[in-house]
Amino acid sequence: MKTLSIAAAAAVLAFSAGSAFSDPLPSWTAGAAKSAIVAFVDATTTPGGETYVDPAERIAVFDNDGTLWAEQPAYFQLAYAMDTAKAMVEADPGLANTNPSLKAAAEGDVDGLLADGHKGLLQVLAATHTGMTTDEFKQSVADWLASARHPTTGQRYDAMIYQPMLELLSYLRESGYKTYIVSGGGIDFIRVFSESVYGIPPEQVVGSSVKAEFELSGTGADTRKIPELFFYDDKEGKPVAINHHIGRRPVIAGGNSDGDHQMLQYATRGGRPGLAIIVHHTDADREWAYDRGSRIGGLDKALYEAEASGWVVVDMKTDWRTVFPFELQ
Amino acid sequence: MKTLSIAAAAAVLAFSAGSAFSDPLPSWTAGAAKSAIVAFVDATTTPGGETYVDPAERIAVFDNDGTLWAEQPAYFQLAYAMDTAKAMVEADPGLANTNPSLKAAAEGDVDGLLADGHKGLLQVLAATHTGMTTDEFKQSVADWLASARHPTTGQRYDAMIYQPMLELLSYLRESGYKTYIVSGGGIDFIRVFSESVYGIPPEQVVGSSVKAEFELSGTGADTRKIPELFFYDDKEGKPVAINHHIGRRPVIAGGNSDGDHQMLQYATRGGRPGLAIIVHHTDADREWAYDRGSRIGGLDKALYEAEASGWVVVDMKTDWRTVFPFELQ
Repeated sequence: MKTLSIAAAAAVLAFSAGSAFSDPLPSWTAGAAKSAIVAFVDATTTPGGETYVDPAERIAVFDNDGTLWAEQPAYFQLAYAMDTAKAMVEADPGLANTNPSLKAAAEGDVDGLLADGHKGLLQVLAATHTGMTTDEFKQSVADWLASARHPTTGQRYDAMIYQPMLELLSYLRESGYKTYIVSGGGIDFIRVFSESVYGIPPEQVVGSSVKAEFELSGTGADTRKIPELFFYDDKEGKPVAINHHIGRRPVIAGGNSDGDHQMLQYATRGGRPGLAIIVHHTDADREWAYDRGSRIGGLDKALYEAEASGWVVVDMKTDWRTVFPFELQ
Repeated sequence: MKTLSIAAAAAVLAFSAGSAFSDPLPSWTAGAAKSAIVAFVDATTTPGGETYVDPAERIAVFDNDGTLWAEQPAYFQLAYAMDTAKAMVEADPGLANTNPSLKAAAEGDVDGLLADGHKGLLQVLAATHTGMTTDEFKQSVADWLASARHPTTGQRYDAMIYQPMLELLSYLRESGYKTYIVSGGGIDFIRVFSESVYGIPPEQVVGSSVKAEFELSGTGADTRKIPELFFYDDKEGKPVAINHHIGRRPVIAGGNSDGDHQMLQYATRGGRPGLAIIVHHTDADREWAYDRGSRIGGLDKALYEAEASGWVVVDMKTDWRTVFPFELQ
């Protein structure tokens, strides 16, 4: 009987370690942010409670740039556009004459691209993001991700994701939440790595997009990206896109900039439980420190509302033990 | 030992009855359509086979009007618009003077609405489908579904769904396929009943849509529908919308009209297994019989390609034992 008891006790312990008593967020320090998140998830998933949320309604949406992965010194998709422009000019030097914006991009002349109302930048985005089929574009992004390296860390761009947010995504999914990305970045761009990197399948990615055209060719049938904006998924656009793609109001929303402000309002002002999470970039040593006044990821009005409304503000410096997964290697 | 053997045999039989040997499509007769569908599902879900499709890639898309529910004598969403216009004019008779199209709709003057390039119809759609929040619109549709009855059958509109297609949707989901609606009808309209009627959650509904605006009011935050077309999800628009919403090429596509033609091509021309299913309305007794030349659900070019390409054409009269679930009651 003694052997059996030990086995039984071990089974109980093993079960506990795998569920209630294990820490689903090991990279988060025991602070107010972690406590608030765990308390909210418990409150919305414990049957019988007043704030219980039906599993079908458990929608959690997250911004990508600056919320799930880094966004400095500039949005990573911009690095893709600049690198691709450079490769295009190298492959066909004549392009430098016919498309001055591509030439500026190839030479890294960011100021030139941003002058005149971002006109040059839009031309570079058009040249590098349209004209090809969606599959061709995705292959190009996949190839770039495999070879490009971040200018300051030397890491792959898709390695510069936040370990604590990976844990949060997994924790939410284990708690019955369906996790979505809702990004100002390109929907086709993010879909290339969302599943392998975040465990978020392409159909749960919402983002900005250009129009596309259906095309029959030989035995094939494809969609081809054309240089015309379809939807800009930022600020007021985010709740609109969430309603369009998902058709349910999110229960949890996470962001890091004023571009996410309306999405956070949409999640918390629905007359039912709602949690808004802001990732605050406060760690100049391990990542970057910026908020108000930053050209990339500016956080101002949403931070005021967060403080006034009791939203969860994650202080990266104190709330996160680890920032990037590669720190653990 | 004999008892044990019987128990074991019973267990094997019970297991078989619940899986391989039970008929997942009891309302389908044993014809070519059913055989082709079952063979395709087997081929794409049997591990190790050459045509095996990874579960994550198992996407099945279906048109709604005429494919999952009936569409005669006119699209059911049109009945909602006409009924709502009538209720609006009854509640505010002055509207009949300021909006002649609403008056025509209230009086059932369909020809008047369709004259002048459908101008009146578009005005009625704008008046009945925009100006309210998305939640208000959905509530209005739910109220209408509860009270409105189909003019010839006297049934609720959402009871006029096809029993064999309900079985097909369940069978596909049990086989690891994610089922989507991709409809020319309104995305917000279909989302009201897709989950309860078809088991398809709102986030798996793709459809036509108007633009929406984000709106803060007091403690609330909503999206409001505005009278401007955002996307018309028909013909070439369907593969474009599938790529936009799902980001994967479907493996199975089902439709019933030329509005679905490009979606069927998109599913079958991807350089990998693809199944196109056309529901052919051939049963004037139990449903309706129409194809080429029909003002609603016209089926012409897609039927030619179906015959040339070996797509599955479902003959409602001979392939379906039952059409509507209420026949079984």
